[in-house]
Amino acid sequence: MAEHAATGHAMHRLATQLFPITRSLTGPGYRRTLELLEQVTGTMQRHRFASGERVLDWDVPKEWTIRDAWIKAPDGTKVVDLAQSNLHVVGYSVPVHRRIGLAELQEHLHSLPDQPGAIPYRTSYYHEAWGFCLSDERRRSLADGEYEVSIDADLKDGAVELGEVVIEGAGDDEVLLWTYCCHPSLANNELSGPVLAAHLARLLRERETPLRHTYRIVFAPETIGAIAYLSRFGERLREHLVAGYVLTCAGDPGAFTYKRSRRGDALADRVAEHVLAWGDEEHRVVDFVPVGSDERQFCSPGFDLPVGSLMRSMYGTYPEYHTSLDDLSLITPQALGESLRAYVRIIDALEANETLVGTVLYGEPQLGRRGLYPRTGGPSDALSAGRQRDMMFLLSFCDGSADLLAAAQASGRPLTELAATADMLRSHDLLRPV
Amino acid sequence: MAEHAATGHAMHRLATQLFPITRSLTGPGYRRTLELLEQVTGTMQRHRFASGERVLDWDVPKEWTIRDAWIKAPDGTKVVDLAQSNLHVVGYSVPVHRRIGLAELQEHLHSLPDQPGAIPYRTSYYHEAWGFCLSDERRRSLADGEYEVSIDADLKDGAVELGEVVIEGAGDDEVLLWTYCCHPSLANNELSGPVLAAHLARLLRERETPLRHTYRIVFAPETIGAIAYLSRFGERLREHLVAGYVLTCAGDPGAFTYKRSRRGDALADRVAEHVLAWGDEEHRVVDFVPVGSDERQFCSPGFDLPVGSLMRSMYGTYPEYHTSLDDLSLITPQALGESLRAYVRIIDALEANETLVGTVLYGEPQLGRRGLYPRTGGPSDALSAGRQRDMMFLLSFCDGSADLLAAAQASGRPLTELAATADMLRSHDLLRPV
Amino acid sequence: MAEHAATGHAMHRLATQLFPITRSLTGPGYRRTLELLEQVTGTMQRHRFASGERVLDWDVPKEWTIRDAWIKAPDGTKVVDLAQSNLHVVGYSVPVHRRIGLAELQEHLHSLPDQPGAIPYRTSYYHEAWGFCLSDERRRSLADGEYEVSIDADLKDGAVELGEVVIEGAGDDEVLLWTYCCHPSLANNELSGPVLAAHLARLLRERETPLRHTYRIVFAPETIGAIAYLSRFGERLREHLVAGYVLTCAGDPGAFTYKRSRRGDALADRVAEHVLAWGDEEHRVVDFVPVGSDERQFCSPGFDLPVGSLMRSMYGTYPEYHTSLDDLSLITPQALGESLRAYVRIIDALEANETLVGTVLYGEPQLGRRGLYPRTGGPSDALSAGRQRDMMFLLSFCDGSADLLAAAQASGRPLTELAATADMLRSHDLLRPV
Repeated sequence: MAEHAATGHAMHRLATQLFPITRSLTGPGYRRTLELLEQVTGTMQRHRFASGERVLDWDVPKEWTIRDAWIKAPDGTKVVDLAQSNLHVVGYSVPVHRRIGLAELQEHLHSLPDQPGAIPYRTSYYHEAWGFCLSDERRRSLADGEYEVSIDADLKDGAVELGEVVIEGAGDDEVLLWTYCCHPSLANNELSGPVLAAHLARLLRERETPLRHTYRIVFAPETIGAIAYLSRFGERLREHLVAGYVLTCAGDPGAFTYKRSRRGDALADRVAEHVLAWGDEEHRVVDFVPVGSDERQFCSPGFDLPVGSLMRSMYGTYPEYHTSLDDLSLITPQALGESLRAYVRIIDALEANETLVGTVLYGEPQLGRRGLYPRTGGPSDALSAGRQRDMMFLLSFCDGSADLLAAAQASGRPLTELAATADMLRSHDLLRPV
Repeated sequence: MAEHAATGHAMHRLATQLFPITRSLTGPGYRRTLELLEQVTGTMQRHRFASGERVLDWDVPKEWTIRDAWIKAPDGTKVVDLAQSNLHVVGYSVPVHRRIGLAELQEHLHSLPDQPGAIPYRTSYYHEAWGFCLSDERRRSLADGEYEVSIDADLKDGAVELGEVVIEGAGDDEVLLWTYCCHPSLANNELSGPVLAAHLARLLRERETPLRHTYRIVFAPETIGAIAYLSRFGERLREHLVAGYVLTCAGDPGAFTYKRSRRGDALADRVAEHVLAWGDEEHRVVDFVPVGSDERQFCSPGFDLPVGSLMRSMYGTYPEYHTSLDDLSLITPQALGESLRAYVRIIDALEANETLVGTVLYGEPQLGRRGLYPRTGGPSDALSAGRQRDMMFLLSFCDGSADLLAAAQASGRPLTELAATADMLRSHDLLRPV
Repeated sequence: MAEHAATGHAMHRLATQLFPITRSLTGPGYRRTLELLEQVTGTMQRHRFASGERVLDWDVPKEWTIRDAWIKAPDGTKVVDLAQSNLHVVGYSVPVHRRIGLAELQEHLHSLPDQPGAIPYRTSYYHEAWGFCLSDERRRSLADGEYEVSIDADLKDGAVELGEVVIEGAGDDEVLLWTYCCHPSLANNELSGPVLAAHLARLLRERETPLRHTYRIVFAPETIGAIAYLSRFGERLREHLVAGYVLTCAGDPGAFTYKRSRRGDALADRVAEHVLAWGDEEHRVVDFVPVGSDERQFCSPGFDLPVGSLMRSMYGTYPEYHTSLDDLSLITPQALGESLRAYVRIIDALEANETLVGTVLYGEPQLGRRGLYPRTGGPSDALSAGRQRDMMFLLSFCDGSADLLAAAQASGRPLTELAATADMLRSHDLLRPV
């Protein structure tokens, strides 16, 4: 736990390093981001999808490079400048360099009247357009006259690119930790996701106890990245994925929110809810809705994968969301560390959960012979009363039809403690995996 | 709605016209009733079942014709006279003409001590007997002496006769609107049923949008009519019936009562309860019980058809039930119009409900390409926020395993609005029927 | 009920007779107990399992005979003496005759500091040891010095022995009434169980109405008895057992406790809970937990038999449990009689419960023809309103898919009353067993 707190500071430093990079779905800023993350995760596999490639129902977009973008007022001063904030230009804007009147300019401006000091985040990935985002205060101060607008960008054939870290486990089952890193200069949604994923990758890589499941930690642009990944690897996920989570909005100090998968009772859901129920984090659980982030793609009805999302304040529910107010001050080392700890506990639970079956199913095993029963019929002298209760419960419950998590729920006990007693019973050959 | 209110007046006028006819299970009054209803419904098919024919566990009774019935007091005055009220004679009374003392007469009289001013409604269809019904006040005023009783009736071989209006739809599924019209001079139970059924038949016949389902509107004598219809057409109903309703007690201004089918969760039930939940009518829902009206036959365990009943004040629960107080003043044009409107909404929901499946099930469809997504990632400019939510919900929900009504329940939205968005998605080839 | 109260006194007298016998899993005291019970039950079949025989995962222990056991203080007075209480010696103690100091003696003593006046009940069946139990008051009064301890016992090859009474029924289904009688001088747990089982066996044997099920009433030593019985007869129970109960803790005047079988909704559970719900006994229902008595063996996951337990104050929940305070004053004739009555009602319900199916499933049967319908359509003159409601309910419910107990639950009626109406319908050939 102290370790996770320390890691929280490293996570926040990484976010600080990534924050100023001019990122989008594609392009040099996005690639630079993957490289910096790779310094934490270790080598990533790269998956490339060329512009124009058909991925499921979608077409891979061109690659966008933005070099400069500004608006000069009639008096020649720059009133909007990409150098001041990455959010000032609408993502995927086509290049433009013109002089236009204020009225026409207004059609290309985006601001938030309800949050007059905030710059909104806007994109136009799949419809050719250009535009600027600015605070409503700034917008209202613009005087009549002729403005010069310049967006120095190009849209060329290139590639959408994903980075994947694979930590191999002993079995065939896979766990997906998915995050996206296409938003520029936004901290909670989204940099908290990639820095959390990177540090989970590092912890898994360095883990001493052997893993039962294979963990795939994937960094991608939102939506098109998930679509592209599913087009290439969706069948494998359908066969092997036992649980997945979309990592996002994990850095603010708000209460936790677990958003269930479309199935609602998948292992991913059962484990996350069990961990939250037995933890001390304030939290709420919400059902799947097909708005949000990449869980929409994983949970699309054809795939219907067991993918949920454990967040702090959920996207769309906090006022700073998708504005310049979602900056580095919104995320804290402590909150990042807590999120890391919660995901580590989820991973621990996924690793501990198995379906076991007793070796003596007809009548109770004779525990006395094995030194597992109090010798004179009074209170136990060999095992604590709680341990003995768990032992009896497991010997009765484990008929091979349900997993340890179901045992934990049925007995009102935390999975990790029950799993420790199960390990003890396995060492006495009284339980075995199905 | 104004239209349904106007129809309410037409329904009440029709009930007024039918009220004085001397009706029973069979006979000239019953046939005259069908003819008058036919003026509203358009031509009915007739189904005849000859006296003595075996129908399921029952025998078709003889045809009863009642011409006159009276009791003369010792002083020669008529103290009970069929000409005063159709209820005065026990239905299916055998003919009699005798002089008898008051004590013997009493054994043939029926009255209601708790409702001293009301004439009860009594029948003796399947046991040969004769009798008179009268108010308890009148009964108590009878003086000792010799009475002359006369029932001029006959029971002859004939037929039980049903009238059926069929409005053809495009598909194989059928909907049954069933009512009975064997009660003489009783308004809520039962004339409200036939007049409602007749006007629903007219609306369905005149409907401009094509129907998906075939609607069968059937007018029958109670119990024996349902038994006879099932004996001839039960197999067809088992194959094709998706929903059915018994129309009765639909004219009083009391709150609505929906009585579920025996299954409890048949489409008939789900649709009726959804319509009531989203309407403004005060209502309650009750489980099936095997007492009541013809739903008993349709829901008998062998058939177990999806037949419920949407009523106002349910039979047996209002004090005027089966007495002369259930007269034309108990039913109102407004209540009849409201009942019509509720059934029209049920029919609209049955027509709107389909099981759809997405055409893009793997990953979300690219909505931007189809003009269905806000272009700059901010609040929608193409669709209202509610419409967009419905669209996303339907694309996620419609995997072919459940119908739109289930989607409406899961999303907490009215079926008709969700179906409109589904139509829009079908026009973009994003949804199709299973 | 008066009969059961009288039997309560007989039960208490039998417990009084059995109380002083020096009993254990095996040996002469245990055999003497079976012989005394047999005077009530009629002849028992005996099942013998030789010492050393493997039964499921267990080994049958040697036979233990205890003749004398005492501790003499340094001054020669007996401070602990088996003749004073059977509980003074740890069950299955090996023989010993030595002089030892107080410090070493203390390692062989058992007392209850929280209940200083009570002698605890301890055994060491499967681990060779010797020891004494005494009140903590007595223990604290022991002075330093040399003590003489003597246990005159032997452990020799012999047999574990069970007694079984079989009351044959007409069908193949079996009901198990199981109890254990290996505890010496303990009244509620356990003598209440054997005396209850014995009197139920007598009532079943003397019952005048023929039985549908075969009843097996078995008297055994706890745990090893159930293991041994299952090793020999477990397969038969899996095929034929429809309900079973462990009879124990049935004599104190506390509220009833029904402990469910591991399945939780077995017929044993449904019947016991229905009987309690319709009775006037204060009661609670608890889920199965794999601690307690012999239900642990019957409900072990391989067998998973439908065996619950209806008790008064459950083992482990009352302070006198497994101490010398659980004496004859803790159990009362009235409480024993009430427990008998509750089990008799369970047996009555098991006998009454059947799965029936209507003979007329398509449409209602014509009840009028059978004299089962009011003749003039008014309130019934043939059946009470409640009887008629039950009749209609049964004709609708009984489609062969569920038993009368399910009908009772669905209609909110007591099984015995509904079963009486079902009998009436069977006499009219309207219902028949599936």
